[in-house]
Amino acid sequence: MLLIHTIEDVRAQIKSWKKDGLTVGLVPTMGALHAGHMSLINKCTERCDKTVVSIFVNPIQFGPSEDFDQYPRTLEADAKLCKKAGVDIIFAPTPKEMYGEGHILSNDFLTYVVPPFFYSNKLCGKTRVGHFDGVCTVVNKLFNIVQPNFAFFGEKDRQQLIILKKMVKDLNIPVTIVPCPIVRDENGLALSSRNKYLSQKSKKDALVLNKILFNIKSCYDNGITDVRALTETAYSIMNFQRQSLEYLEFRDQDTLEEKLTADDNTIVFIAVKVGGVRLIDNIALGMIG
Amino acid sequence: MLLIHTIEDVRAQIKSWKKDGLTVGLVPTMGALHAGHMSLINKCTERCDKTVVSIFVNPIQFGPSEDFDQYPRTLEADAKLCKKAGVDIIFAPTPKEMYGEGHILSNDFLTYVVPPFFYSNKLCGKTRVGHFDGVCTVVNKLFNIVQPNFAFFGEKDRQQLIILKKMVKDLNIPVTIVPCPIVRDENGLALSSRNKYLSQKSKKDALVLNKILFNIKSCYDNGITDVRALTETAYSIMNFQRQSLEYLEFRDQDTLEEKLTADDNTIVFIAVKVGGVRLIDNIALGMIG
Repeated sequence: MLLIHTIEDVRAQIKSWKKDGLTVGLVPTMGALHAGHMSLINKCTERCDKTVVSIFVNPIQFGPSEDFDQYPRTLEADAKLCKKAGVDIIFAPTPKEMYGEGHILSNDFLTYVVPPFFYSNKLCGKTRVGHFDGVCTVVNKLFNIVQPNFAFFGEKDRQQLIILKKMVKDLNIPVTIVPCPIVRDENGLALSSRNKYLSQKSKKDALVLNKILFNIKSCYDNGITDVRALTETAYSIMNFQRQSLEYLEFRDQDTLEEKLTADDNTIVFIAVKVGGVRLIDNIALGMIG
Repeated sequence: MLLIHTIEDVRAQIKSWKKDGLTVGLVPTMGALHAGHMSLINKCTERCDKTVVSIFVNPIQFGPSEDFDQYPRTLEADAKLCKKAGVDIIFAPTPKEMYGEGHILSNDFLTYVVPPFFYSNKLCGKTRVGHFDGVCTVVNKLFNIVQPNFAFFGEKDRQQLIILKKMVKDLNIPVTIVPCPIVRDENGLALSSRNKYLSQKSKKDALVLNKILFNIKSCYDNGITDVRALTETAYSIMNFQRQSLEYLEFRDQDTLEEKLTADDNTIVFIAVKVGGVRLIDNIALGMIG
């Protein structure tokens, strides 16, 4: 496995693979790899001849009051996991390598890829202004650098996944996006690098997210489709909790349009603050099982 | 020569070329080809194994009060010129092929590539709000569809060229931009598809643009570097004309920063309305001859 820090080196390696007609898969991450990431990586190594994992805590997708500095950076441990999983390249550039230096990282001096407002102005985008601009921009850059045939993204960040699929379609990007199911711990908590911020107590409280989602899913499976009624079931669960709900929304899985009546194309999105940590989760009502 | 209207067909053709290790050049145009375009096309056929000319009047780079409907469309004549010049593919998609249908072409529902404000908020961008967003978006799409090794752009649209070079750099796009010098008619008028809008009288009046630029250039070559003084020479020429000057600006050839003292990295940009038609031109003070 190669650990590469520069764009030039990663391009040279991939160019030689492409010459040999090999398929390349990319798993873009911010590191602090957990079993969720590993499921993406495993899917990638199964599907592609060569697997590139990018590890880059992308400054331009963090707001000024967010956790960019605090975000866990565990490159050594990540590299061990990747090696074991059969990854071919870890691409771990510095911010300087990705954005140059000498100017502020703003849309005054940097070309941005900006997703449609209708997709970015809701759910996480409401509180994380500019976040998805930063995500689309860095993913576009990574696609241009690595030129993968396939790129793997977790359904955990479902709004991101929907926005990236839209970006690929709108800009005719020659990459196939492969969505990967959420990985949960034994209690149902969706894995996230930010779970590291949770105390033992908060980790228990955080189960409210998946409780609400799976309860809605089972109500839906039992024939309840009225979104107001389904939402009420969530509120009744929340009433016994001290966490604060940021959003609970029913939206179309492709267009993010609001649903008043749930159907198999509906995603239920939830964000809750637990012990000061903002957690998100979602469930596809059309999912079987 | 192939005349192709769909993304799928152009991709299939280019894929087979790439398999054979051939280099591909792209000349993006809006059609109504003139000797300026042909100089780009000739440079492309010289430099690349295969030449693709795209002809697409891109709706999203026109403002609501601009000349999208009126813009000359001369596909048959264009095709003859391309064939004669040795072009391999004309890619002429419909707006529907490029943007789909069923929604308004706005940043509410479409992913845009947005150049830095510092680059787009001046010169032509001041009056043509959103124009360069539309340009960057469509060029990005064309790059993703054609995946050329080289792309050829005229220095006539110098702000566009500088913005596209910045886009390629910022987004790590694996395409080399090749700038091509302005082609002028026997009187010095820079060729433009919009010259078709000019009456005989206006065509004469339009010579004020290159007169001003070449006069500034010769003053600069004679040692005058003070931008205020150089600007005065222009005003004295304008005084005898009825046209209205939209802008005359001295800016850096890479960063578009304003220059108070002219140097070899300075571009002089001019826009003038002549007989109701908005014309642009520019000159590089570092240019030899």
